Amino acid sequence: MSNLYKEAGVDIDAGQRTVNLMKEAVRSTFTPAVLADVGSFGGLYALEGLPERPVLVASMDGVGTKVKLAAQLGRWEGIGADIVNHCVNDILVQGARPLFFLDYIASSRLVPEQVAAVVTSMAEACRAVGCALLGGETAEMPGVYTEGAFDVAGTVVGLVARAEILPRQAEMVAGDVLVGLPSSGPHTNGYSLIRRLIEGRDLEASFDETGRTLGEALLEPHRCYLAEVERLRAAAVPLKGLAHLTGGGFTDNIPRILPPHLVPEINEGSWEVPTLFQQLVAWGNIAPAEARRVFNMGIGMVLVLAEEEIEQALSLLPGAVRIGRLAERGE
Amino acid sequence: MSNLYKEAGVDIDAGQRTVNLMKEAVRSTFTPAVLADVGSFGGLYALEGLPERPVLVASMDGVGTKVKLAAQLGRWEGIGADIVNHCVNDILVQGARPLFFLDYIASSRLVPEQVAAVVTSMAEACRAVGCALLGGETAEMPGVYTEGAFDVAGTVVGLVARAEILPRQAEMVAGDVLVGLPSSGPHTNGYSLIRRLIEGRDLEASFDETGRTLGEALLEPHRCYLAEVERLRAAAVPLKGLAHLTGGGFTDNIPRILPPHLVPEINEGSWEVPTLFQQLVAWGNIAPAEARRVFNMGIGMVLVLAEEEIEQALSLLPGAVRIGRLAERGE
Repeated sequence: MSNLYKEAGVDIDAGQRTVNLMKEAVRSTFTPAVLADVGSFGGLYALEGLPERPVLVASMDGVGTKVKLAAQLGRWEGIGADIVNHCVNDILVQGARPLFFLDYIASSRLVPEQVAAVVTSMAEACRAVGCALLGGETAEMPGVYTEGAFDVAGTVVGLVARAEILPRQAEMVAGDVLVGLPSSGPHTNGYSLIRRLIEGRDLEASFDETGRTLGEALLEPHRCYLAEVERLRAAAVPLKGLAHLTGGGFTDNIPRILPPHLVPEINEGSWEVPTLFQQLVAWGNIAPAEARRVFNMGIGMVLVLAEEEIEQALSLLPGAVRIGRLAERGE
Repeated sequence: MSNLYKEAGVDIDAGQRTVNLMKEAVRSTFTPAVLADVGSFGGLYALEGLPERPVLVASMDGVGTKVKLAAQLGRWEGIGADIVNHCVNDILVQGARPLFFLDYIASSRLVPEQVAAVVTSMAEACRAVGCALLGGETAEMPGVYTEGAFDVAGTVVGLVARAEILPRQAEMVAGDVLVGLPSSGPHTNGYSLIRRLIEGRDLEASFDETGRTLGEALLEPHRCYLAEVERLRAAAVPLKGLAHLTGGGFTDNIPRILPPHLVPEINEGSWEVPTLFQQLVAWGNIAPAEARRVFNMGIGMVLVLAEEEIEQALSLLPGAVRIGRLAERGE
């Protein structure tokens, strides 16, 4: 048997070794709602204390070619947080808090220690937001993935009361303020282009004012904004909408949450574009409008708030910046 | 912009063309519970008519290297059904009916028509079980996937009342009967080995008694068993457990659902092993015990039922076969 599998290029023991390595990390995310242990056919999650008219919000996403950079640098430990935080932010913009997460990790050849590093990172990011790592799949697929490459995807499922779904487009009016929350880097977007821009550059050299290397700056995990949103909720600051600046960068994501009659008016100089983005733009000689469609340019999440809430909101959100306002289309 | 992306090997328009091609198929799966349209950050699913003590059951899985065979033969239309049915079966064994499904499709280069074929197949499989295709991600990842290869993964989320969770291990006793439901082929397991066994063979030649080619036989989609289980429920035939014969084949999956004191006793000659499996075993000169740990050998789902329910169960399930019983460990 194991010979047959070896001939076919599959290491049947790697799966079990991987499970053993990551079991404790996964269990550490379990809340009392989790009913089944690691290794069941499906993960079980008890729905208790439901709000009135509960709505599930689900999102599936991948880390994109940031995984290629992680593989190149042999640093897997941020990739798990990347996918969890990306997914959690995606349902946050609809008002949902995460319940549980499931992951998919595939490679031409599973290296248990690498998979365990990714899953441990996922587990930490899950624990930080009270989300159970309910299940997942690790797949060894010789011939599908290039040698040494791997892919990471995930699904998050969260919950929101129907009355609290975001965005609240009917409440948005011209003059509402756009507040930006800082990103930790390119998050999980633009990496096919980034990999091209950094070709031949030294990823291990100290890079910016923080002393990080270029590789470290590029692998900085996607930041999660749940804590900031919870802080506003706790203070009863009403949010009209949230836009997660992912694929489509700074430019394309804000309009997605606005009613058709409103457009964002961005005050371009209102925040400092981090060194990394300035550098990427310079290396690629990218026009500003183009850069804003690929990269988040230092802003990972945009909040829509009424003018009268701004003072309190900014006092609750260190690092948040007023970056623009909503205007009538054609105003 | 598009030049920059082209240089980086990314076709930014492919994503939008893909969305356009698959939008209608996806929408065709929407039930009244779906609140957000295609393209939202997250999919919204209203929970209504919940049972007492509702439990969500979730599973994420991939199609495995069957995708490689599909790519080789240029036939994508079964792969969507493969992943949906695989996932639906995985939560069925815990008693859950599917609510919604999310998909992940990644490739070195997205071919919109291929992605649309996969998603259309997913949508059909979802519609057949009343499951909404709530969201997904298509990712173009040059350098991660080998040229022409793609990967497909999915997550299903279903619902079960806590009192109806399967398996019911406390009710299982020695003498309970194991009933097998026929598989439609290897489903989604053993394909790394299969690809090795068919090297150099003619995939286009008529193969078995049905006149299918070898390629067609191997790409037959994973069968879904929800309808059979619903039929038993409708007739109030109490099921004690269900085992989905996936990775680990015939041998490893049945013990997963049994209490420690019981073991399955299989009557090896009780069902006819389909030609395809006989042929694969012959080509690989695989010992019977080994074959049963890789392949489902013609049985895709195993039911545990009390002896007194068997007559009615078999009358409700055409093609079902009594394949063994439970025995005390060490009996």
